Amino acid sequence: MSQQALTPLMRPRSIAVLGASPRPNTLGNNAVANLQRFGYAGAIFPVHPSAPEVVGLKAYANIASLPEAPDCAVVALSSDKVLATLEEAAGRGVRAAVVFASGFAEADAAGRALQEELQALCERTGLVVCGPNCLGLVNVTARISLYSSSVPEGLRAGGLAVVSHSGSGCIALSTLGRFGMSYMVSAGNSAVVDMAGYLEFLATDASTRVAALFMEQMRDPGRFAKAMAAMHAAGKPVVALKVGRSRKGAAASAAHTGSLAGSGEAYADFFRRTGVIGVDDLDEMAESIALMLAVKKLPRGDGLGMISVSGGETAMLCDVADRTGVRLPDPAEETKARLRTALPGFGTASNPLDATGNAVYDVSVYEACMDALASDPGIALVAVAQDCSPGLSKLGSGNYRRIAEKVAAVAARLDKPVAFFNPAAGGMHPFVIEPFENTDVAVMQGTRGSLLAIRRLFEYAEFTRAGRAGRETSPAAVRPDPAWRARLGTGAPFTEREGKQFLSAHGIPVTRESLATSEDEAVAAAATLGYPVVLKVESAGIAHKTEVGGVRVGLADAGAVAAAYRGILASVKAKAPNASVAGIVVQEMVSGGVEMIAGLSQCAPFGMGVVTGTGGVLVELVKDASLALAPLDRARALELIASTRANKLLEGFRGAQPADVEAFAGVLVALSSIAMAYGDLLEAIDLNPVSVLPAGRGVRVLDALIIPQKPSL
Amino acid sequence: MSQQALTPLMRPRSIAVLGASPRPNTLGNNAVANLQRFGYAGAIFPVHPSAPEVVGLKAYANIASLPEAPDCAVVALSSDKVLATLEEAAGRGVRAAVVFASGFAEADAAGRALQEELQALCERTGLVVCGPNCLGLVNVTARISLYSSSVPEGLRAGGLAVVSHSGSGCIALSTLGRFGMSYMVSAGNSAVVDMAGYLEFLATDASTRVAALFMEQMRDPGRFAKAMAAMHAAGKPVVALKVGRSRKGAAASAAHTGSLAGSGEAYADFFRRTGVIGVDDLDEMAESIALMLAVKKLPRGDGLGMISVSGGETAMLCDVADRTGVRLPDPAEETKARLRTALPGFGTASNPLDATGNAVYDVSVYEACMDALASDPGIALVAVAQDCSPGLSKLGSGNYRRIAEKVAAVAARLDKPVAFFNPAAGGMHPFVIEPFENTDVAVMQGTRGSLLAIRRLFEYAEFTRAGRAGRETSPAAVRPDPAWRARLGTGAPFTEREGKQFLSAHGIPVTRESLATSEDEAVAAAATLGYPVVLKVESAGIAHKTEVGGVRVGLADAGAVAAAYRGILASVKAKAPNASVAGIVVQEMVSGGVEMIAGLSQCAPFGMGVVTGTGGVLVELVKDASLALAPLDRARALELIASTRANKLLEGFRGAQPADVEAFAGVLVALSSIAMAYGDLLEAIDLNPVSVLPAGRGVRVLDALIIPQKPSL
Repeated sequence: MSQQALTPLMRPRSIAVLGASPRPNTLGNNAVANLQRFGYAGAIFPVHPSAPEVVGLKAYANIASLPEAPDCAVVALSSDKVLATLEEAAGRGVRAAVVFASGFAEADAAGRALQEELQALCERTGLVVCGPNCLGLVNVTARISLYSSSVPEGLRAGGLAVVSHSGSGCIALSTLGRFGMSYMVSAGNSAVVDMAGYLEFLATDASTRVAALFMEQMRDPGRFAKAMAAMHAAGKPVVALKVGRSRKGAAASAAHTGSLAGSGEAYADFFRRTGVIGVDDLDEMAESIALMLAVKKLPRGDGLGMISVSGGETAMLCDVADRTGVRLPDPAEETKARLRTALPGFGTASNPLDATGNAVYDVSVYEACMDALASDPGIALVAVAQDCSPGLSKLGSGNYRRIAEKVAAVAARLDKPVAFFNPAAGGMHPFVIEPFENTDVAVMQGTRGSLLAIRRLFEYAEFTRAGRAGRETSPAAVRPDPAWRARLGTGAPFTEREGKQFLSAHGIPVTRESLATSEDEAVAAAATLGYPVVLKVESAGIAHKTEVGGVRVGLADAGAVAAAYRGILASVKAKAPNASVAGIVVQEMVSGGVEMIAGLSQCAPFGMGVVTGTGGVLVELVKDASLALAPLDRARALELIASTRANKLLEGFRGAQPADVEAFAGVLVALSSIAMAYGDLLEAIDLNPVSVLPAGRGVRVLDALIIPQKPSL
Repeated sequence: MSQQALTPLMRPRSIAVLGASPRPNTLGNNAVANLQRFGYAGAIFPVHPSAPEVVGLKAYANIASLPEAPDCAVVALSSDKVLATLEEAAGRGVRAAVVFASGFAEADAAGRALQEELQALCERTGLVVCGPNCLGLVNVTARISLYSSSVPEGLRAGGLAVVSHSGSGCIALSTLGRFGMSYMVSAGNSAVVDMAGYLEFLATDASTRVAALFMEQMRDPGRFAKAMAAMHAAGKPVVALKVGRSRKGAAASAAHTGSLAGSGEAYADFFRRTGVIGVDDLDEMAESIALMLAVKKLPRGDGLGMISVSGGETAMLCDVADRTGVRLPDPAEETKARLRTALPGFGTASNPLDATGNAVYDVSVYEACMDALASDPGIALVAVAQDCSPGLSKLGSGNYRRIAEKVAAVAARLDKPVAFFNPAAGGMHPFVIEPFENTDVAVMQGTRGSLLAIRRLFEYAEFTRAGRAGRETSPAAVRPDPAWRARLGTGAPFTEREGKQFLSAHGIPVTRESLATSEDEAVAAAATLGYPVVLKVESAGIAHKTEVGGVRVGLADAGAVAAAYRGILASVKAKAPNASVAGIVVQEMVSGGVEMIAGLSQCAPFGMGVVTGTGGVLVELVKDASLALAPLDRARALELIASTRANKLLEGFRGAQPADVEAFAGVLVALSSIAMAYGDLLEAIDLNPVSVLPAGRGVRVLDALIIPQKPSL
């Protein structure tokens, strides 16, 4: 579906309302009245079997009798009538439709079947549909309301396009009263056009500067990524709130990697890759929208310079910056000298800067402070934190407006972006913030939301600077081995030993080991490997061997090996009497490495993710997991390793030697290649621990859990 | 200072303005005008050397010529004139004063001296002073404005008292326009009356229902705790925002326990103990105030039942509840049955509950859902999340008002508290929320802030239910040993061995060990202790022995001990050539325990805090530290241990035996006793690791760092 295909939906020149009704307060009446009330300039054709007119407009008995083929049909009918009506409309030359009705895939099996029919119809006829199960859409710029709910009377045209799976997302963002909008799209079930389709359109829409997505699920990550590329090419940021990420679902996984990282992490990595500004609630979203709509000059760095007129609030700003991960660099010496000149005698040249109460009365202090901070090479954006809640006194609002006027004037001549925020949310005094209208100064509210928005702007600017192309390369693809594909396809669990054979075949170093089926074989194997050794039970039915006493480490001689052999068998017999035991694996004992976990887990709809973090028995204790979606290259693997807590250990903690991070990055890249070659057959891979030896000595996988997908029947 | 002593300040019957000025827009003019404009009903005496009148009021040439001794003096003079003026006023019988001037302790050494003089004057004369370096105070109920800034015109009387070290705190909270207020106190430097003094007054003030504190520092924790007891006895919650907690200061500590827990944790524990509702920014504060002002029936439990009319928003509510630690219990079977009856066919009986769009049009659905959730024994509070931003359409605001009316009506007959919140912050539509006026339904905004406020209400109710008295007992005091006090008083660092002797003398089990000064002595000591053993360098100059190669573990025979002895000496000589080495300690090797850290660190102004968490080399990696202020009893020690991540290990992780948590709690209680007996001489104690052996086998401190305070010169 090309961008042009959406034009009849997003900017129709004529509209039929199917199911129009002369009865007030019905869906079919509101749909017509909304179009009129919002000021639609094109032709409206209400269709009703008998009524001569609807809301003062001539009505038509059926689609066939329409005087022309309208661009778009608004379908105000219940789900059972939708398909026949759309078929007829498409036959008459209608190219787009909005379907409000519920009772489709969100409802039950019959609804899902109906939705599939709808999709097939659209595929066949080329009809583009918004919905079903939606509030419809509003083109605010062109005053076109294809909407079943009421459009806020105060809604003004502007640069924000909202696309929401949930009707509430549209209502919440359009009623804040803060943002001029280009489009508001309630996408509902998105049976035919999903977010990617709308983004492709918005990338070329002249009135849209920023898109905000309230997302319940991602359908087609590949197409979404392409749509994001189009948005980036057009210089239009996308802010997204993905809902439904709670951990309930991720809990009951056999592999640690699955339970360590939830779906939130997969979305976060996808957003990072595609340059989406991800937010966690409506308030964070609102402040990111406010900032991205206003800022024209992107920051070149990640240092925030912040000014307020109160010591107490400065302390709070510092605390919240610490918690939200915003960097407040110390001013350079030259900046400090300038600040000392600007401030009254008792002021301190620091960041955040308390410009002191004097600045309220002498706004030239403000000007000098802003100039000084903006001149600092370490500061990429200047933010002014100033109380300006709606309940300010007349005198206070006059004082603070003078500050706002000064900030707006200074910002106009600075080459760095400027933001102004109320440390408290709950609205802004209109008289105070009026000077920022039609300027590039972002106006925000709430300390946390404002600082998070600034941090995310820094990340967005860095993404834009780095450029999408060439930043992440796909490693060379691995050719899947038909024998291993067949083995995985059986769905049968792997023993550790078989798992290690699979890993070894794909370039991942594992412990040297061999399977023993008697005490004597075990002792002989140990002598070959060299003492000390480890013994482990070999059984496909036992996922966690330690818990059944199936592992003995540090066996230093033949006697210890023989005793351990007997001990393991006895313990496993007692604790897992039904497990079938193939023997005991005798393994080289690797020590002196940092124990990491590495693995793969399914991250629908994105494919597999590579997970790493602190390994060993502490894995669940430390909860140290970083996730990147496959494929990942060496550079990203190193970034991922650096983002774990365990990185401190790898770097050589407390005098220890640095570990072989390069070799460990190789394991992650190899896992990524495995994901690309076998991901459709794998449920998860869990390598824990992977011993990362001192630099130059490589890595060794000590234990491995490979979980094939259950074959579909 | 008794509560009565504050009456002349908080409710003066007559007021002199010292430094009153006939010139508009001066401090001395504003102070008089503010009193008049805000409607003060008592006598106002402007004092000016020559002007016959100020703002239309007869002025007096000096304090002596006043017709009567006023209760309170407003001092609108610069800092150099304050002391003489107060002396004179006190001589004339004035009992209270507000001092606006800056230039006291916040400024420089001269200012600190001036503030001490001010304090001495007040001590001598009994004068109570608000300030200096403040905006003054406003008694909103009695319309008394002893205030240098402008009082918001819309400020109405109500149950909230704000006390703030920062003037901005007062401005921020009084201009939100959401809360009726009893008092607004800008306490400034609090040289004479601090938060505890104001709280003591507010506990008995009939107009105050909730106090909100914007706190820069705590002066006198003991008195503050007593004031909190008075507030609890009066049933008045206290919400506090402590600012200035960033970690910059806590970083460079020699002991791990110091850097693990910052001042934020000490305040958090103090707030927990005293039942203060601690918040982290102004928005969290505003929502906690809104909730605490409205709720009359405290919840009896910590389960939240939540309703919205949108699937998408329900998913977001679930995510944010997960992140904010709010429990949304699954409805009981009976509740589910009731919900299934109440909901339309496609609805799902869950919590949070999507009451579906139908509930907007048929508010009886809402009523039935609320009744069902409120009847659930697991649900302690019912919250309704409903979009109601100021930009709603007329039709929308009418619909949502009907919901609000229904919610208010249902809440009135429920025996559980009810809250209503807008999932987005940024204001509420006045027409929608009007039905909640004069009801017990809390009205909040912003998902995160509202849910945090609810979680903190649950915690407050739990504190209240448990009762302060008897919940935490002080363990039996330890009689300090004069010899150890003298030793600590030298300030000289302890070696590990001396530290363990100190611990052992105070009932904390340590490793058996002895000091060897030759290879032969070391081998003999090892034979006595039994193999395997550990060798450690003994040197007061080496805090972290591992980093200089000063530790060898797992030495299994005489040869290994001798080699280790030589190896340690060589390594220490190379890596710490200037350290004086007293010998090598030979220690029993303890294995099979869970390694924890336990320690003490100074937490000004609260005394020492007991810290525990994951120990061993992972201590900084895991960043697992829980802190409780001393003294702590066994019950609290067990709570503290349970709150660490390491608790999973202690409970017997992956089939391991449970550890001797009782014995480890004993170590924490003993540390608390040490803090009480020697806290004035200690900087920190760092026991890492403490090996917590399997239950019944006790604990053993493996390494100990005792850091005395530097003796003051």
